[in-house]
Amino acid sequence: MDVVTKATNVVWHSSQVERSERKALLKQSGCTLWLTGYPSSGKSTTAYALERALIEHGLLAYVLDGDNVRHGLNKNLGFSMQDREENIRRVAEVAKLFADAGLITITSFISPYRKERDFARRLHSDFGLDFVEIFVDTPLEICEQRDPKGLFKKARRGELTGFTGIDDPYEAPLDPELVIDASVHSPEEIVTQIMSLLAERHLIPALSIPDVQFRAR
Amino acid sequence: MDVVTKATNVVWHSSQVERSERKALLKQSGCTLWLTGYPSSGKSTTAYALERALIEHGLLAYVLDGDNVRHGLNKNLGFSMQDREENIRRVAEVAKLFADAGLITITSFISPYRKERDFARRLHSDFGLDFVEIFVDTPLEICEQRDPKGLFKKARRGELTGFTGIDDPYEAPLDPELVIDASVHSPEEIVTQIMSLLAERHLIPALSIPDVQFRAR
Repeated sequence: MDVVTKATNVVWHSSQVERSERKALLKQSGCTLWLTGYPSSGKSTTAYALERALIEHGLLAYVLDGDNVRHGLNKNLGFSMQDREENIRRVAEVAKLFADAGLITITSFISPYRKERDFARRLHSDFGLDFVEIFVDTPLEICEQRDPKGLFKKARRGELTGFTGIDDPYEAPLDPELVIDASVHSPEEIVTQIMSLLAERHLIPALSIPDVQFRAR
Repeated sequence: MDVVTKATNVVWHSSQVERSERKALLKQSGCTLWLTGYPSSGKSTTAYALERALIEHGLLAYVLDGDNVRHGLNKNLGFSMQDREENIRRVAEVAKLFADAGLITITSFISPYRKERDFARRLHSDFGLDFVEIFVDTPLEICEQRDPKGLFKKARRGELTGFTGIDDPYEAPLDPELVIDASVHSPEEIVTQIMSLLAERHLIPALSIPDVQFRAR
């Protein structure tokens, strides 16, 4: 086959894929579920349990957390106020790209300041993408009792400074889409509750999820 | 239903999703296709045409390019040598996350230096992810004739400095997985060639792709 050389003065046009095409392919709407809460509140456990459940339902999810972000994209950031802000800014921007690509994106960061969570929300809504803020509202005393990495102990001894809940504030969400308490409910129950919310919002298909009754705190 | 409060001294375990599960779900292997070449060489046109073709085959792809990265994640970077390096470093890290999530990730950046492309490759291979370097080897004279944004003209007039191909070097890949010339082949032919390569490498299923004969340059 002989191929004609293309005219060199033609500006080629991008043939971008519509969001609706991704939705039809994946049977879900790209969105970001933003988990926020104290250290050791159960954010990552919730994130990974949810990711697993979604994948088992044939849905595509991905967790962005400290493990895959702080050691890669954000390895050149420390823990100064400025660097913490930049950390969350980059996470918000990457989450937006993942949501745009069609994934159910789950972020798991303390993200203690309203300003930065509001930034992440606006970034998504300005782009027509759903943003679901999930407040993992496990009581501070219980987070501190858990303390699987011994960080609260270090912070209490003054070996860590700027630790959320000890000497740095956590600004609780004023109007999150969901509030969960990982000291009261099991990961399975929490996952069920989040998936029900996603189905209600038509972000995932209606699934045969067992109806769990949640006990009020 | 009455829910038992969980023990507070239990360290919960993450239930992470295996790469093989993502592969089974999406019928493809997450990977990164790294397009590199002169300005106006046809990288973005190739990237978007490929993304469209993959989606039409029921496969999930996403393009990372200047438009969605420079205006978001990397908006705080300029064009100094240091910032250009950081630009590509972040793109490589984000591409790795997308590939890890199971997507066929297509990056479209001039990425003129071997060092930075090699960094991106290593980042992927160290993580067990396929990295396919595609050299869009459209001759410089033709890129300059095209010049859809008038950037070559500006660079020739000295209004832009550090412009790849004019006063900044482009280090051609030494051992890319594929070399294409967008002045000789149409986007459709190039897409066919790339998809054939992906199928050969078992990154996507064998597809009924028309067999295109490519003319040597």
